Amino acid sequence: MMSEEVLSYIQQNREDLLERLNDFLTIPSVSTDSSYKIDVQKAAQFVQNYLEEIGFDTIEEIPTSNHPIVYAAYNKAGVNAPTVLFYGHYDVQPVDPIEEWDSDPFTPEIRDGRIYARGASDDKGQVFMHLAVFEAFMKTTGALPVNIKVCIEGEEEIGSENLYDTLKEKREKFAADFVIISDSGMVAKNQPTILYGLKGFTGIEITVDGPDQDLHSGLYGGAVRNPIMALSHILSTMKNIDEEITVEGFYDDVEPMTAEERALIAKVEGEDYKQTTGIEETISEKGYDAKEHTMGRPTFEINGIYGGYQGEGTKTIIPAAATAKITCRLVPGQNPETIQQLLVEHIERVAPAGVQVTVKKEKLSSKAYMVEPNHPLIKKAAICYERAFEKETIFVRMGGSIPVVEWLDEMYNIPVILLGFGTPEDRLHSPNESFPLDSFDKGLETLVYYYNEVSK
Amino acid sequence: MMSEEVLSYIQQNREDLLERLNDFLTIPSVSTDSSYKIDVQKAAQFVQNYLEEIGFDTIEEIPTSNHPIVYAAYNKAGVNAPTVLFYGHYDVQPVDPIEEWDSDPFTPEIRDGRIYARGASDDKGQVFMHLAVFEAFMKTTGALPVNIKVCIEGEEEIGSENLYDTLKEKREKFAADFVIISDSGMVAKNQPTILYGLKGFTGIEITVDGPDQDLHSGLYGGAVRNPIMALSHILSTMKNIDEEITVEGFYDDVEPMTAEERALIAKVEGEDYKQTTGIEETISEKGYDAKEHTMGRPTFEINGIYGGYQGEGTKTIIPAAATAKITCRLVPGQNPETIQQLLVEHIERVAPAGVQVTVKKEKLSSKAYMVEPNHPLIKKAAICYERAFEKETIFVRMGGSIPVVEWLDEMYNIPVILLGFGTPEDRLHSPNESFPLDSFDKGLETLVYYYNEVSK
Repeated sequence: MMSEEVLSYIQQNREDLLERLNDFLTIPSVSTDSSYKIDVQKAAQFVQNYLEEIGFDTIEEIPTSNHPIVYAAYNKAGVNAPTVLFYGHYDVQPVDPIEEWDSDPFTPEIRDGRIYARGASDDKGQVFMHLAVFEAFMKTTGALPVNIKVCIEGEEEIGSENLYDTLKEKREKFAADFVIISDSGMVAKNQPTILYGLKGFTGIEITVDGPDQDLHSGLYGGAVRNPIMALSHILSTMKNIDEEITVEGFYDDVEPMTAEERALIAKVEGEDYKQTTGIEETISEKGYDAKEHTMGRPTFEINGIYGGYQGEGTKTIIPAAATAKITCRLVPGQNPETIQQLLVEHIERVAPAGVQVTVKKEKLSSKAYMVEPNHPLIKKAAICYERAFEKETIFVRMGGSIPVVEWLDEMYNIPVILLGFGTPEDRLHSPNESFPLDSFDKGLETLVYYYNEVSK
Repeated sequence: MMSEEVLSYIQQNREDLLERLNDFLTIPSVSTDSSYKIDVQKAAQFVQNYLEEIGFDTIEEIPTSNHPIVYAAYNKAGVNAPTVLFYGHYDVQPVDPIEEWDSDPFTPEIRDGRIYARGASDDKGQVFMHLAVFEAFMKTTGALPVNIKVCIEGEEEIGSENLYDTLKEKREKFAADFVIISDSGMVAKNQPTILYGLKGFTGIEITVDGPDQDLHSGLYGGAVRNPIMALSHILSTMKNIDEEITVEGFYDDVEPMTAEERALIAKVEGEDYKQTTGIEETISEKGYDAKEHTMGRPTFEINGIYGGYQGEGTKTIIPAAATAKITCRLVPGQNPETIQQLLVEHIERVAPAGVQVTVKKEKLSSKAYMVEPNHPLIKKAAICYERAFEKETIFVRMGGSIPVVEWLDEMYNIPVILLGFGTPEDRLHSPNESFPLDSFDKGLETLVYYYNEVSK
């Protein structure tokens, strides 16, 4: 059988593959820091070299105003085979605080069955797995089972600034029958997980301006509205202590969770939040447990707040201003622009007199994405996962947002299959990021099965 | 008449006096910054030298663990004359932001009838006026009209850290019949103002701790209580938008304002808050106007707040913690310790589940101070002010707190007469601090009349 040959190639060449992954992870492709610009470029080049070696027909570096997008196409699978768009990113998060790393973030190290390096899980390690599978197919069968378009960008960690416009401009170039992305995780190590939904995203920043400058609280207390107090009043009207968002109309377009879905979610072994976060008890929306709320209900979070004196001790002032940063995660049905507008209108309604309240709308917004859990491409993915991991696949929705998924959905209206192999212990964006070798091995197996399966 | 001689000395020596004040203001006696320690010492020395030149009997520098207290005594006025304790401070606030000063803060400059320098009004300028008056009395009459004890400290701007213990230890040394302090202001330039009451002071810091570290809002939103939201909920229950403090028991011990007092306050021309602070409308406690609230009702102010992400753009986290700094100004009847306890109990009552709430009590607390507006020493002050400024004196209470006033009240139970000559335009603690020459000239005149008047 075709898969066996390919798999045995991977097994025999495991050391070489890990060696090559090592080279990829060694490049400090930190996209947010312009002093790494050359390294980001090197990572793009690494991807292109590999694609060339594999034998892709077209390889192209699409320049943008910042970091390039690597495009490649393989179209020898024939007109009857589907065309898959494989998306990933070669850039990584910064490494700060560097002193908290147990080994150098750009000197990959294998310890206790994990590869430690920035990008090991997010997303270089997972991008690499697809390339390795392509290599194995070509080296053993001389072909890929499906037509493939590759889109690997270098700006995912800075909001995919240039991707949207590039996709829009080159709509035909990236057109495909469906999309595969491995930039997410499983709910636990070795637990096959199908991510069939992602939340949308929007945000605002509220600034409350009071007096022209900080005022002496003794002289002006009793005459001047305190901007921090005003902001607290505004914020407290937006979500109640039962975690219900109390902004008028916020839930109006929410597609309710079905009984079937709640049953699917009930099957998922929940995260041990006490263990992973140190909190004493979970708090979720009245009527929903933490799993249901994180996966399937919208959220409203204050990400940051500041105003007045933040130093040691006391400074008896009425501050000139106070600011809060807010983001919401949205579920299917909700439109980010509508939600932003509802937030603005709510704030205007509750803003107290005596201060000036300004709301800035976050530019990057995205709708939630969801594919039917029983879509044939999803069912096939579940089967392939199960063959590789020898464990029943579970189905989850995630609170996170991957803007590119929503863009692809919006532009092409095609299924986006999220095949994640990360684990909750990977410490994405944190010191000591790592990726389990188990996920590497079984993930490669899953991908070999899947690329074969979808060719049928 | 005795006063005329003294006043004419002051007029004839005005330039010399301003020259000497200039020397005093040139010393950067910033008490909070240890790199200015020698300068703070120099300012103490300046005061001692001047007192010696004037002819005080005893001059002593009382060391403390930080900056010294200058003590001096003149006791030749005889046993029938009262003993006055004159209190002031020779230290000043820092000058930051230095770039906002139009002239160097320690190179005094006279522009448009004002002396611009750090400390010109708070409090070197006003301390100097008393010393100048003492000089004038000695140079013309060979004596001071009353016995005088001088207490000029160097730590007022850092909370008078060592004064309380010094006063307590040397209780007899500082004992007097009443106290005179010029470390405050008039409600408007050339408007004689008797400050017959000060507010008390207390404070707390609330910290809300959530997860061990900042969490990804997509993965944990819906499971973990947001500390900033929790803090906003707590704060919003402490004062309502009608500016009523909604902490149970907060007003229980407040001595209500009498109709007489409200009538006194009504006579005060209120500050033009739009002009001085840039706000569009004043906001005060329901049932009281801004003048009444600032002068005679307690206040609750959030002085600072922080938590989570404060940088540019968006960071989608649930923050690990959030903190708010709160101070209250208290009125007669209220006990600061009781108020702190009420605040703590309120917070414990309203703190939501899922987060850890800690309240730190501010150590420096003080009770409000009030002297009867028709006390003979107050009436005499009003008459002297009116003679010098040729305008009817008004009577005000102030929202500010001067801890030393409460300590002196507590320790000696003697009247504290607050003869302030500052104006609302002096920009205390801010860039471009200044003091009007009008206040300098007419203030000196007032003090000459007053020291004579109280000798009778």
